[in-house]
Amino acid sequence: MVGGGQLARMTAAAAVGLGIDFRVLAAASDESAAQVSAGTVVGDYRQPADLLAFARGCDVVTFDHEHVPAPLITAMEQAGIPVRPGGHALRYAQDKLAMRERVTGLGIGCPRFAPVRDLAEVAAFAEQSGWPVVLKAISGGYDGKGIWVCETPEEAAAVLADGLAHGIGLIAEEHVPFQRELAILVARAPSRQGAAYPVVQTVQRDGICHEVLAPAPGLDEETAVEAERLGLRLAAELDVTGLLAVELFETKAGLLVNEVAMRPHNSGHWTIEGSLTSQFEQHLRAVLNLPLGTTTALAPATVMVNVLGGDEPDLHSRLTHVMAADPGVKVHLYGKAVRPGRKVGHVTVLDSQPDRAAERARRAAGYLAWGVD
Amino acid sequence: MVGGGQLARMTAAAAVGLGIDFRVLAAASDESAAQVSAGTVVGDYRQPADLLAFARGCDVVTFDHEHVPAPLITAMEQAGIPVRPGGHALRYAQDKLAMRERVTGLGIGCPRFAPVRDLAEVAAFAEQSGWPVVLKAISGGYDGKGIWVCETPEEAAAVLADGLAHGIGLIAEEHVPFQRELAILVARAPSRQGAAYPVVQTVQRDGICHEVLAPAPGLDEETAVEAERLGLRLAAELDVTGLLAVELFETKAGLLVNEVAMRPHNSGHWTIEGSLTSQFEQHLRAVLNLPLGTTTALAPATVMVNVLGGDEPDLHSRLTHVMAADPGVKVHLYGKAVRPGRKVGHVTVLDSQPDRAAERARRAAGYLAWGVD
Repeated sequence: MVGGGQLARMTAAAAVGLGIDFRVLAAASDESAAQVSAGTVVGDYRQPADLLAFARGCDVVTFDHEHVPAPLITAMEQAGIPVRPGGHALRYAQDKLAMRERVTGLGIGCPRFAPVRDLAEVAAFAEQSGWPVVLKAISGGYDGKGIWVCETPEEAAAVLADGLAHGIGLIAEEHVPFQRELAILVARAPSRQGAAYPVVQTVQRDGICHEVLAPAPGLDEETAVEAERLGLRLAAELDVTGLLAVELFETKAGLLVNEVAMRPHNSGHWTIEGSLTSQFEQHLRAVLNLPLGTTTALAPATVMVNVLGGDEPDLHSRLTHVMAADPGVKVHLYGKAVRPGRKVGHVTVLDSQPDRAAERARRAAGYLAWGVD
Repeated sequence: MVGGGQLARMTAAAAVGLGIDFRVLAAASDESAAQVSAGTVVGDYRQPADLLAFARGCDVVTFDHEHVPAPLITAMEQAGIPVRPGGHALRYAQDKLAMRERVTGLGIGCPRFAPVRDLAEVAAFAEQSGWPVVLKAISGGYDGKGIWVCETPEEAAAVLADGLAHGIGLIAEEHVPFQRELAILVARAPSRQGAAYPVVQTVQRDGICHEVLAPAPGLDEETAVEAERLGLRLAAELDVTGLLAVELFETKAGLLVNEVAMRPHNSGHWTIEGSLTSQFEQHLRAVLNLPLGTTTALAPATVMVNVLGGDEPDLHSRLTHVMAADPGVKVHLYGKAVRPGRKVGHVTVLDSQPDRAAERARRAAGYLAWGVD
């Protein structure tokens, strides 16, 4: 797995049971995944020599992020190394304009969008869609960085100038008046077997995923089936191998695709305890072309809340209270230095009641971050 | 954790979520736990220099087996290193005669026993308890090695001679006509908090644990409570920190203690999926003096079946069929070379029906070992 963040860390834990020789290409020996994974290789995934040397030691290469430059994906594939997902699929997780065009071409709902190079084009777009206009970096967007909600032409002009200065291409998107955000997570193997997890509700704050409620509370059966079909169809059409996470807007006019990712995804962390097959195991099964595991939820409600960096650098000092206050809370710490707003862990709660699951998980995550419950 | 076997391997996976720096002292860099755990130290736990050097790098030392010589446990303790369980408790997992005497002294039921040095003493014991007589090595018994069921004085004489030749002390025990075998697994922290898992039924074959049914099917509430109390009391009386597994005989006359272990135990592997807190996480929480986690079972029935070495050295070649035949089977492979009868993995199935759980788990384990389901 290329990338040494928390996604690789949790994948490493899932690899233990499968008895496979799992290795990480990490940027440093103290990265999140490198701390827990044997045989970590330290190197730079942007350097062809580092990446190719790592890949040549692997039966299959996969990723914990989408930042590997496309030419290097191609180089690995041309060297005969199985890369999953392949470059032809991964392109749609790396290039938001290509993704929007492809999804639209498949007749799947999207926010209105247009590539924009200057303020005139943004203004023309806003005439159709109104303000605010969402500007997004075509490539490299991650966790809110690379996404700007512009209320006025002046704000858009500033983003355009900054993007131009950094050589970043932008698209404009309509600001969708959604009812809530959902996510559908599916896996697809080279065998073409596909499997979908229950649809979840995600709650974002400041552009960062904050909570995941699984399954999405009160979701009508029709919309749930529509979302699962959408995910499975998109995975098949894009020929994804591994996981595909699709972030969705639920609107009065139906489901719209917001973002896609082809790796374990924050919206799927709940599956570690909440499903018999965690998303991390499922990703490994998919990229290794093993049959996919059961995806049903084990409890009526599972809620995951991210722990964002707060006022305490030593999260361990807060474990005693969190564990004593609620022995059913599952804590996951990523071994990352605490910085304000950084994802440093998450907690998961299974419960028979969605409201209670959410309350318990929020209290635990809040205490870990801020020492207050 | 001293020891690099599958128990340390699964503990390593549990340590990932807790965000702790978990290290293993393994005999070789390709041992089961060493394959998956970062920062493994290779050394010999019987060598004071190796053990002490490893221990000095740890905040807390614990074990995946009971073979560390008592003087070395003492040496670590005298060096001020927290060792959990401590030597005063671990003694009862290392010395079957001391354990029997202590358990009897507490008024807890045991098979009849007596230390035996020669055939005359075995014969005298058999006059009370009849044949067969069970002879056990006082120290070093593991997985059936060190336990001999002797049908006749001639068989006992052979074991005695062999024991004498190897300098091994023996005890004789009555061959208990049990109805079935049960096990109770509890955890106890230095804080004195204790927690018990549901009582399980274990099925041994040729002296090796073969299946675990959780909870023990059809167990009356009274016996279940008695077993839990027995486990918690024994943990408190022996001042155990970490896990205590107590293997029990269910007899018409009540529960009798068969064996005890103070580490993650085969009878608790079902908790990885079957309980919110796995025994491996619980052991870590206990030895780190963190509050203990929920121990309730997640499903009406969880069945674990060991995968013993069969006819195929490459277990991966059998994953496709096992996973395709039953997407709800959880496979755990230990990365160990396949040798006949060796524990090389296990499978776990959660189900609403105990019989169906057992059948599904047996099929999967049987196929992994022998290619037949």
